[in-house]
Amino acid sequence: MKKVFVGLVGFGTVGTGMVKTLIKNREIIESRLGASLILKRIADIDITSDRGVHLEKDVFTTNVMDVIDDPEIDIVVELIGGYEPARGYILRAIEKGKQIVTANKALLAAYGNEIFSAASQKGVEVAFEASVGGGIPLISTIKEGLVANRILTLFGIMNGTSNYILSKMTEEERPFSDVLKEAQELGYAEVDPTLDIEGIDAAHKLTILLALAYGVPIDFGAIYREGISKVTPLDIRFMKQFGYRIKLLAISKDDGQAIEARVHPTLIPEKSMLANVNEAYNALYIKGDIVGNILLYGPGAGMMPTGSAVVSDLVDVARNLLNGIKIRVPLLGYQAQHIKKRKIRSIDELVTQYYFRFSAEDRPGVLSRISGILGEYDISIDSVHQKGRDTTDAVPIFMITHEAKESNVRQALAEIDRLPVVKGQTMLIRIEEGLS
Amino acid sequence: MKKVFVGLVGFGTVGTGMVKTLIKNREIIESRLGASLILKRIADIDITSDRGVHLEKDVFTTNVMDVIDDPEIDIVVELIGGYEPARGYILRAIEKGKQIVTANKALLAAYGNEIFSAASQKGVEVAFEASVGGGIPLISTIKEGLVANRILTLFGIMNGTSNYILSKMTEEERPFSDVLKEAQELGYAEVDPTLDIEGIDAAHKLTILLALAYGVPIDFGAIYREGISKVTPLDIRFMKQFGYRIKLLAISKDDGQAIEARVHPTLIPEKSMLANVNEAYNALYIKGDIVGNILLYGPGAGMMPTGSAVVSDLVDVARNLLNGIKIRVPLLGYQAQHIKKRKIRSIDELVTQYYFRFSAEDRPGVLSRISGILGEYDISIDSVHQKGRDTTDAVPIFMITHEAKESNVRQALAEIDRLPVVKGQTMLIRIEEGLS
Repeated sequence: MKKVFVGLVGFGTVGTGMVKTLIKNREIIESRLGASLILKRIADIDITSDRGVHLEKDVFTTNVMDVIDDPEIDIVVELIGGYEPARGYILRAIEKGKQIVTANKALLAAYGNEIFSAASQKGVEVAFEASVGGGIPLISTIKEGLVANRILTLFGIMNGTSNYILSKMTEEERPFSDVLKEAQELGYAEVDPTLDIEGIDAAHKLTILLALAYGVPIDFGAIYREGISKVTPLDIRFMKQFGYRIKLLAISKDDGQAIEARVHPTLIPEKSMLANVNEAYNALYIKGDIVGNILLYGPGAGMMPTGSAVVSDLVDVARNLLNGIKIRVPLLGYQAQHIKKRKIRSIDELVTQYYFRFSAEDRPGVLSRISGILGEYDISIDSVHQKGRDTTDAVPIFMITHEAKESNVRQALAEIDRLPVVKGQTMLIRIEEGLS
Repeated sequence: MKKVFVGLVGFGTVGTGMVKTLIKNREIIESRLGASLILKRIADIDITSDRGVHLEKDVFTTNVMDVIDDPEIDIVVELIGGYEPARGYILRAIEKGKQIVTANKALLAAYGNEIFSAASQKGVEVAFEASVGGGIPLISTIKEGLVANRILTLFGIMNGTSNYILSKMTEEERPFSDVLKEAQELGYAEVDPTLDIEGIDAAHKLTILLALAYGVPIDFGAIYREGISKVTPLDIRFMKQFGYRIKLLAISKDDGQAIEARVHPTLIPEKSMLANVNEAYNALYIKGDIVGNILLYGPGAGMMPTGSAVVSDLVDVARNLLNGIKIRVPLLGYQAQHIKKRKIRSIDELVTQYYFRFSAEDRPGVLSRISGILGEYDISIDSVHQKGRDTTDAVPIFMITHEAKESNVRQALAEIDRLPVVKGQTMLIRIEEGLS
């Protein structure tokens, strides 16, 4: 049987998942590929810890160059994560003519243009199915399955940790900090949860999806981003009562003129498929101009799901090598000469529906002051709900607006928040009604 | 720009979808493929009807051989549907060395072994993404995206018409015949709806998925099949009340020993993702041993969604041709020497939970007679619900069982249905609890 030689850099969680998969399902992988994937070398700073897999001792090295410079190795898998030294290793491996497989969304979101251009010039593949959506084949679906479509809209639940926290907050109506602490204790959230709860990880992934969907260069900075830490049980209770669920959505829309790209907590109809994506699951809802609405759902992270995606990339790259080709599908889905910058709209230009929660003194005339200011900024109200008074302090006023422009909303809220009868900052959550 | 020549046989609904897609999105397809897909000839018995697309007159022919025998045509797309003459055309095109794209699930379920073996021998591709799940990239997900996995379970809503009917019946608690009639008037169901409502179409699709998932030869006859026409509003009302939804599911399970393969109405938890797949949408829930649970959802039929899948096949095949290769991934996912017959369990061997609706006289001792017989056959009861009497006729008794063996269930029900106090045939619906 033919052999394809693989070298692994980074033997952490995902690396272990990849190795376990290659061992457990060697037979079935070979019966599909018609060749053997031989894991020749593994480089890690820690080569002694027990990861529950048995491999020959001489597979391991602490020197990454033993992997990258090995002339027999066809494919280098980078699973260190982070920017450096991962970036340097990948660039060097490309220079050596290796095919690359990586799960490193942070790196691709920051240095993707450099990496993909180096790989294109050298004529080698950079496969990254595992970088977005864990085990869900999202990348191949956009690059290949929906190749006949203009991608009109993407709505993604792309971060398992924040979805887990929001799901728990919704189910149990507990405050954010409380649920975060529990998630950290259970290992669902990192000690420093910033990347997850501030929407940075989701924005990394959206950056990659934008390039695949629209043929634009990678540009993390163009994505508007808000995290979930401001969401309170008060908001949750209201939205449950009024038929909404809250999700940290990665959203992009293309109206042909420009692209919207944003990550923020979003209210969506409780009957929509995305509203039912709970716990640490991920999902991507794709609207294509030809196909209509597609949803892909599955585990967005974790040792084995991500391992599954890494090995599918290995098999894909191996199939090409066995057929004597290196790049069969352009790395980011579009031929190089068709990758072009397009206008990405500022959040100020957004037009959508909004949920507001005002904190105001319970006195006559307050609502009229607030709605007066909203009216001045062309923001019309769909519905208002005021809680019965059970306190002499400020009471919450909940409001759903019709479509309004974000820049107007911001000015109006700034003005409202300066009213002496309004206590504290008004809560704003964007709404997406158009989800089935 | 390089050109790949395409010939179309069958200019019906899906053919029109393909042609419209190629015209509307020519630019974006070329910017991804790096080549032009040239639709050189279209053969149909009707070449005069207006399909809303403009093409040069000399593209059309009523003679299929003008397509198949054209030496310049690289890919022949068969979109006639049905067994003959589609089978003959495909076999002839294979003989001529053409790459094949088809959406014909009925043909593949019946003659797939013949067609795939002819194509393998000739070294040409038969691509069939559009045959299962319309616009959802299911085939490529199983063949490629989940290549690292043993497929443990498939749960599919694979027929849009029956899902539409069951959704309406559930929403509006109307009888089957009524909703079917409306669906026919609206064009959601055929004049002869047998293929859809009797589960035949879903079984065709499951036949294809089984081959892809398990590397078994195509064997339509091995699939157990029940349709939806027996479901009544009484059943719907009960299941809604007790947290279930009813779906016509295509189910397969592999426990390593043997494979279960069945299509029948199934009760599933209302909170599961599949329970929320409504209207004519399709979805496939896949459990892989490495990846865990994946769900793919989207439009399972229709002109444009199916056209999207056909064009994705065209691009895939074209990428191979442009790289000088013909078959890159084995036609059914497994290398020929690994395709082996496996035991497919008879429905008698099934062990699952059941829903029964007995129709019995409202007299003391009836329930004890029924449960006595169930006990004799080792069927234990999870819960029983009896409607308040509002009639002197038979009343319904609803029952959910614990796991029981189908052969026992059948014998017990036959015995129960012979009791003089039991009126009419007992309704049996299988339950799948293990869905998230």
